[in-house]
Amino acid sequence: MWRELLPVGRHGTTGGYRRHAWTAADADCRAWFEEQARRRGLTYEVDRNGNQWAWWGDPAAGGAVVTGSHLDSVPDGGAYDGPLGVISAFAALDALRARGVTGGRPLAIGNFSDEEGARFGVACVGSRLMTGVLDPGQARELKDDHGVTLGTAMERAGHDPDAIGRDDDRLARVAAFVELHVEQGRNLGDAQVGVASSIWPHGRWRFDFQGQANHAGTTRLEDRHDPMLAFAAAVLKARGQAERAGALATFGKVSVEPNGTNAIPSRVTAWLDSRAPDAATLDMLVKEITHESRATVTRESYTPLVEFDGRLRDHLVGLLGGVPVLPTGAGHDAGILASALPTAMLFVRNPTGASHCPDEHAEEADCLAGVAALAHVLEDLLREAA
Amino acid sequence: MWRELLPVGRHGTTGGYRRHAWTAADADCRAWFEEQARRRGLTYEVDRNGNQWAWWGDPAAGGAVVTGSHLDSVPDGGAYDGPLGVISAFAALDALRARGVTGGRPLAIGNFSDEEGARFGVACVGSRLMTGVLDPGQARELKDDHGVTLGTAMERAGHDPDAIGRDDDRLARVAAFVELHVEQGRNLGDAQVGVASSIWPHGRWRFDFQGQANHAGTTRLEDRHDPMLAFAAAVLKARGQAERAGALATFGKVSVEPNGTNAIPSRVTAWLDSRAPDAATLDMLVKEITHESRATVTRESYTPLVEFDGRLRDHLVGLLGGVPVLPTGAGHDAGILASALPTAMLFVRNPTGASHCPDEHAEEADCLAGVAALAHVLEDLLREAA
Repeated sequence: MWRELLPVGRHGTTGGYRRHAWTAADADCRAWFEEQARRRGLTYEVDRNGNQWAWWGDPAAGGAVVTGSHLDSVPDGGAYDGPLGVISAFAALDALRARGVTGGRPLAIGNFSDEEGARFGVACVGSRLMTGVLDPGQARELKDDHGVTLGTAMERAGHDPDAIGRDDDRLARVAAFVELHVEQGRNLGDAQVGVASSIWPHGRWRFDFQGQANHAGTTRLEDRHDPMLAFAAAVLKARGQAERAGALATFGKVSVEPNGTNAIPSRVTAWLDSRAPDAATLDMLVKEITHESRATVTRESYTPLVEFDGRLRDHLVGLLGGVPVLPTGAGHDAGILASALPTAMLFVRNPTGASHCPDEHAEEADCLAGVAALAHVLEDLLREAA
Repeated sequence: MWRELLPVGRHGTTGGYRRHAWTAADADCRAWFEEQARRRGLTYEVDRNGNQWAWWGDPAAGGAVVTGSHLDSVPDGGAYDGPLGVISAFAALDALRARGVTGGRPLAIGNFSDEEGARFGVACVGSRLMTGVLDPGQARELKDDHGVTLGTAMERAGHDPDAIGRDDDRLARVAAFVELHVEQGRNLGDAQVGVASSIWPHGRWRFDFQGQANHAGTTRLEDRHDPMLAFAAAVLKARGQAERAGALATFGKVSVEPNGTNAIPSRVTAWLDSRAPDAATLDMLVKEITHESRATVTRESYTPLVEFDGRLRDHLVGLLGGVPVLPTGAGHDAGILASALPTAMLFVRNPTGASHCPDEHAEEADCLAGVAALAHVLEDLLREAA
C-alpha cells in the first residue's frame, strides 16, 4: 500500500514530494485513495469540498468515528506528513477486520483536500470550507503563482467549485475525529506514540515591499528605492523578535520583480509564517515585525489556539497507557475540525525532527506502533460511541 | 520605424519589455532588423555568433565604420536601452543618404545578440563571443531558469550553436565602432548628447547560501539552518560596504528552494551585481561581502575597466563642439569591442535617469539630436577613414 504511493509526485532531483492541490500528482494520490476504498469494499464518496471519504458501514447512519489525514505535500515535502495518517487509517481498519471487530457505528477514513496550502497560500482548505471557517467565494478566488484560481483548478480537476462551502449535514454525521500524524519536532523522546494537547495559534502574512526598478549599474545608492534592503532588515528583525518572544517567525517564500541580476527590484513580496504559544504573543510579534518593515502587510490566514477536546484526549492517554501529551506549532485538519467536533491527534515519533523536507522520516517499528495505537483507539470509540 | 518595434515583447501589466535572447519576442525584433535592412537595399548578414549586420557598401572591402547596439532587454526593461542605438543608426544612414553622402568605405549597422544577459546570466554574449572573451563551449552550456542551455536556445531559434566563437575575419574588416545609447543616469545635465570616457569594471557573482529545509511551524529556532538569514545579512552588508567604497552593489535576483510559506528554505541563491571606479576597489568590495556571507560564491562574469580609444573620443568631442565626457557603470557591447577595435560611445540625455525599467525615457528632441550627432560622426569617419 505504502509502496504504490511512494513514487507519486516525487521530484527527480530533490527526492522531495510536490503533491500540490488539484495537480496531476494530487489526482494520482486521490486515485490511489479511491482504489484503496474499492479494494476493501468501502463506500467511496467525494464531498462538496473535494474531500475524499471511504466508509465502513452506512454513511447516513450518523454517530460516525472518522480518521484520516491528507495526501498533498509542501514543495519538496517528505513522504510521511499526511500520507502516514491515511495509510495508518487503512491499516488500522484492516487490523480491526482481521480481529473480527464489527463496527456498531460507521467508521470513515478521510483524505482532506489541500491541507498544506502550498499552491493557493491557505492551509487546510478542505476542512476550513467544510466547517465554514473559509468563505467559499473567497476560496474560489485564491490564486496560485501562475494566476490560476482555486475555482478554475478544481474545475479542471473535474470538481464543481460552485458546490464548495459549509457542510453541516456531513459534520452532523460524525461523532469524533482522530488524526494520526508524524511528529514534526523531536518532542516524543523515547516514546513511539503521543497524544496532542493543543496547536499554537499561527498564521501567514504577506509583506509587499515596494521600490522603484532601476539599473543596478548606473543608479547612485542615494537615488535608489531598493525594496530588497527593507526585506533583508525584516528577515533579521523577525528572527530577533521571535527569539525574544519564545515564538517562531520564518520568511520561507519570496517573489522578486523583475528579478534581474542588473535591475534594482521594483517589488519584493515575502511571506511570514509565525506561531506562538498564545494569541497575545503572536499578535505582538507580528505587530513588531510589521511596524518596522515599511511594507504593506496582508494577513492571508490565521488559525487561533486550538485546545483539543479534553475528555477525548484524556481517554486516549488512558487507553494507550500514559503516553506523552504534547503541543505542536503545526496546523492540521484536526485543528480545524476541533471547532466543530470532538477531535484528537496521535503523533508518531520522528527521530530527527525533520519535517516539510525530503529528510523527514519515521522508523517502521514506530509506524506500526502508530497503527496499533490508532486501531486500539478506533475500536474503543466504535464500541464506546455505540 | 520606432512605432513598429514598440509593441514587441511588451508586457501587458508592467508596461516593461521582456525581449530575452532567443525567445519569440527576440525573434520578432530580429525580423524587424532584417526588414529595415531589406527596405534600404542593404546587404543583410547574420554572423557566426548570431549578431545581425546590415551593410551599406561591400562587406568584404575592409576598413568599415560600424554603428549599432542591441534589441534585447532586461526583464521589464524600457523602450530605449538598446533599440535607440539601432534605430538611430538606421535614421543616421537615412540622413547621410538624403544629403548625398556616398560611403567611400563601407558602413555597417549591427544588432548584437544577448547584450543584457537576462536569460543566461552573462551579458554581451554576442560581442564577447566575437572577440573571443567568452569561450564558446562555456557559452553553449549557459542555462536559463528552466534549464535550457544557450546552445539549445540558439538551435531552436534556427542558429547553429557549433558555429559560435572568435571571429577574427569579421573584426579585421572593421576600422571603428561607435555605439549610441540612452544615458542611464542623470549625468548629462543640460546637454543633449555626450561622449563616453570609460566603463567601470563590473561583474556578477552568484551566492549560494546552503541551509536545511524544515518545517517553519515546528523547528525550534536554535535547531534551524535557515539560509534566508545569511542572505539578508549579505544584502545589508553589501549596501554598507558599497557606500563606504563609493561603489555599487546590488542583489536584484533571488531564487529560493523550496520557496514554501511554511518551509525553512534548503537553499537561497542570490546574484550580486557590483561595480566600482577601479578594479582594486571592486575586488576589495566583493571580497568583503563574500567573506562574511558564509555562502559559496561563484564569479559568473567580469568586465575589466574599459577606457575608450582616446584619439577617437577626443575627435568626437571636437566634432560635436565640446560635449560632456562621462564614465558609466553599465556594460555595453562597445566596451567589449573596445578590446579589439577603436571604439567610442555617444550618450543621449535621460531626464530622470531611470534605466532598466518601464519608466526609462528620452525626449524626442534629444533623440533627434542624437541621430544628428551620430550622422555627423559617421560622415566624418567614412570620409576620414577613406
